[in-house]
Amino acid sequence: MAGDTLLLDYGSGGKAAHRLIGELFLKHFDNPVLRTLDDAARLELTGPLAMSTDSYVVDPLFFPGGDIGTLAVHGTVNDVAMLGARPRYLSCGFILEEGLDMEVLERIVASMGNAAREAGVCIVTGDTKVVPRGMADKVFINTTGIGEIIANPSPSGHSARPGDAVIISGSMGDHGLTILSHREGLNFSADVRSDSAALNGLTERLLLEVGDIHVLRDPTRGGLATTLNEIAGQSGVVMRIAERDIPVRDAVREGCSFLGLDPLYLANEGKLICILPQEKADAALAVLRQSPLGTEAARIGTIVAADGAGPGRAGQVILETPMGGHRLLSMLEGEQLPRIC
Amino acid sequence: MAGDTLLLDYGSGGKAAHRLIGELFLKHFDNPVLRTLDDAARLELTGPLAMSTDSYVVDPLFFPGGDIGTLAVHGTVNDVAMLGARPRYLSCGFILEEGLDMEVLERIVASMGNAAREAGVCIVTGDTKVVPRGMADKVFINTTGIGEIIANPSPSGHSARPGDAVIISGSMGDHGLTILSHREGLNFSADVRSDSAALNGLTERLLLEVGDIHVLRDPTRGGLATTLNEIAGQSGVVMRIAERDIPVRDAVREGCSFLGLDPLYLANEGKLICILPQEKADAALAVLRQSPLGTEAARIGTIVAADGAGPGRAGQVILETPMGGHRLLSMLEGEQLPRIC
Repeated sequence: MAGDTLLLDYGSGGKAAHRLIGELFLKHFDNPVLRTLDDAARLELTGPLAMSTDSYVVDPLFFPGGDIGTLAVHGTVNDVAMLGARPRYLSCGFILEEGLDMEVLERIVASMGNAAREAGVCIVTGDTKVVPRGMADKVFINTTGIGEIIANPSPSGHSARPGDAVIISGSMGDHGLTILSHREGLNFSADVRSDSAALNGLTERLLLEVGDIHVLRDPTRGGLATTLNEIAGQSGVVMRIAERDIPVRDAVREGCSFLGLDPLYLANEGKLICILPQEKADAALAVLRQSPLGTEAARIGTIVAADGAGPGRAGQVILETPMGGHRLLSMLEGEQLPRIC
Repeated sequence: MAGDTLLLDYGSGGKAAHRLIGELFLKHFDNPVLRTLDDAARLELTGPLAMSTDSYVVDPLFFPGGDIGTLAVHGTVNDVAMLGARPRYLSCGFILEEGLDMEVLERIVASMGNAAREAGVCIVTGDTKVVPRGMADKVFINTTGIGEIIANPSPSGHSARPGDAVIISGSMGDHGLTILSHREGLNFSADVRSDSAALNGLTERLLLEVGDIHVLRDPTRGGLATTLNEIAGQSGVVMRIAERDIPVRDAVREGCSFLGLDPLYLANEGKLICILPQEKADAALAVLRQSPLGTEAARIGTIVAADGAGPGRAGQVILETPMGGHRLLSMLEGEQLPRIC
């Protein structure tokens, strides 16, 4: 299909659409469930289940460390995993702009297929819509994932408890800064690349080998600051975070300084937050650091009761600055960084 | 939110995004699973399961008989139901254009909430992305549905057998002609309205009260002709269809004649094809006709073996014309009718 561009016909349900399915999607996603090509996929799966959905509209489509296809697999796999589940199946819905270069589409589809195989999930059902030129920007992808819950109770944003330790699996801001700098043509450092990765291997080890995990969350849109605020609010606790303990790569720190951004509000696509009892913190850090995805894992703070001593009300995140002061790490109104994922 | 327009902030993951979730999605979709607001939904559901996904990009957003919100619920509910499943849960991913009128969004969300309640499904997890003006056309919605399979074996496009009867639940082409005429400003008949409807009540009765259903399929994009061709191909059989037995409303017939379209290639959003042994055909018709969604149900043809007497090779659909002749009802290359659903 090299040199071809996408026609409206490909989204019509007619012969052209069937060729697209056969030559592109079955080629890269092939598995016995998808191959039946019925309106729905039949899955052998036993509950309780986790289900999560995300649409991906990232601009640019390709960037150092990944592309819209890897994000569409990793992002949804990670959301399912964060509920204490083993992700198993993905659906995939494409909205494509007429005139799209078919080589671009095939690169993305191949990338999704590889990411799915690496994460151990199957893409079992899909849909393609083609809209006329100018009615969408090249490629949008929705993936919805389901998996078997392997933790009882499931980790939840509501389950952070006073005394718990707050751990993150690595450096913050890599994905967000990569997208922004690449979009603006500011390739100011070769070291800046997206952390796009599937975290289900890590979460499964945390759940099965460490256990008693109260909260798992991936700090994507809105970054670490927004996600910590969500958890503090859902659990009705105060979170005390030591800024100096948050790993941020030098290149990201420099890029943020140049662009006037705070890495704590930038999206990550291959990092997790794990909140669990203090006495389990070392075991969790050990598990994380054994994986290439968690070599920089760090304990960054503690959950305290809303009525305890010290600053902070229920739902607030208090950042202890390197100088020893305290400031409120608030949730922003909006981050004004569209199309980051 | 009347008078407001959608800002990029609403898709950021920050406070504005949280307000959108609280004031709009929780208001109209409310259920205990969604209310946890974790990254994924925890579902008590045991397999085997059916899973299906569709993105909806229909233009215009509102039309006689429905809107993009009803389609997004009905279309996915129907695809899950066609695998012999009881649809239970939907995910919902919005891609919204900056500047969208918030009243338009709320109308759509309310419409989805109502359609979900009527169909007996819960919207349990969601995602919203906002893209800058001009990067998408107003509203795109993906829904992914899962449900418990209640038929063993599941109906499948591969299961049509020589001797089976082919039944449809009502008139063809209503949805497609409604969208086209409304888009072109050709409101040539007040009688033309979309058939957008959830068919899971009908399919459940067919499966449980009639049984032995070989194929269930909803003839959406590409219409009856395309779907019959898909089934004939998957099952490796010939399908013989009597054109005079296919119900088409007068207003649709006239509209098609005016626009030079064939109603057999126009999308339906509230009709099903049921293929089952001849001896069960009357029972299936009786069940369908008891429902307001199936009053015009009709038996339109028969499955014959590929090597049998008469015209047609494996995978072909032979239309017997009202004059008594035969013609091949082929799958079109593309229908050139983008954004019909």
